[in-house]
Amino acid sequence: MTQANALEAVVRLLGEMPGIGGKTAQRLAYYILAREHDYAFQLAAALRELKESLQWCRTCYNISTDEQCAVCRRPDREHQVVCVVEDAANLANIERSGGFRGYYHVLQGVLSPVNGIGPDDLRIAELIQRISQNEVQEVILATNPTVEGEATAMYLADVLAGLPQADQLQVTRIGVGIPIGASLDYCDEVTMAKAFENRRRLT
Amino acid sequence: MTQANALEAVVRLLGEMPGIGGKTAQRLAYYILAREHDYAFQLAAALRELKESLQWCRTCYNISTDEQCAVCRRPDREHQVVCVVEDAANLANIERSGGFRGYYHVLQGVLSPVNGIGPDDLRIAELIQRISQNEVQEVILATNPTVEGEATAMYLADVLAGLPQADQLQVTRIGVGIPIGASLDYCDEVTMAKAFENRRRLT
Repeated sequence: MTQANALEAVVRLLGEMPGIGGKTAQRLAYYILAREHDYAFQLAAALRELKESLQWCRTCYNISTDEQCAVCRRPDREHQVVCVVEDAANLANIERSGGFRGYYHVLQGVLSPVNGIGPDDLRIAELIQRISQNEVQEVILATNPTVEGEATAMYLADVLAGLPQADQLQVTRIGVGIPIGASLDYCDEVTMAKAFENRRRLT
Repeated sequence: MTQANALEAVVRLLGEMPGIGGKTAQRLAYYILAREHDYAFQLAAALRELKESLQWCRTCYNISTDEQCAVCRRPDREHQVVCVVEDAANLANIERSGGFRGYYHVLQGVLSPVNGIGPDDLRIAELIQRISQNEVQEVILATNPTVEGEATAMYLADVLAGLPQADQLQVTRIGVGIPIGASLDYCDEVTMAKAFENRRRLT
């Protein structure tokens, strides 16, 4: 690989990341070039290490160093609640909020007919098997409130309603509305409509 | 390095890049995790290769695979014009525009008292030596139109005006104004003021 090719390769690979276009990828590549040698080598080593030490948790399909992930290994959480998320990043964000005390199930994607991603490409069969084998009382659908995330949640709600144990199983969807600290002035119309739809009775 | 540490390291290192904050770095790290194995390994290899195959051009301090960079190796350009740029990325952008046919000189930074970067940290002595030894008739100062870029251009103009051969040397600054295709509606005040200051006579 010549230097020009290495530069091109870095620009191309960085440019494949979400939110990083060609111009940004190029700026980042030049930044890496201008940094001291150690930076690129540390990043290269960390990237290799990241992938080499990774596996999927056999229970929830979160990223994990072992057969079971850090959440599934903890015995002190609420066994009867499973929160379904799109990916490990969403899981990590929910964990950081500290607002959830149950276990997770990572779908590893969302339904997306445009990108050819159907139910068989997600960990849905594994979710159903898990619910069948355990005493799960509530499944919280925490896919993102995007078109695809909503469609995936609707699909899962349908599938779960068709299970033999459906009458002992509550399926819920995370709350959607105005984010805390945000201003109504800057709220988009869809969120605003959802916030009214999801209003709660106070008195 | 455990997987959690590798993830932290990737997030930390990506987060050091310009324009990439903690949240974005995390999203990118999870993206890399979710991609097929080859992606992280290819990126790691390209990053190592990028730094290993790099050196500074001995003439203009552009990045180069050899002692002289691809521009300096070309004999068909205008020897009497040198364009001074902040970094190799700016040089690459100017080259892509095809609007310049001379040679370059890369400062490898800008004057920035706040960050402790003075004239001795830039390739200014090398520029002066180069001008003294060659038949340079024009130096185009093409540092960015930022506070630091402008200050660097002003400093260089002063230094070049004090050279023994100053009367045979023209020092110019790239044009500053409204970008082509942009709307006056969205032009900031400083650019607008500069555009009026730099107006050209048509008739």
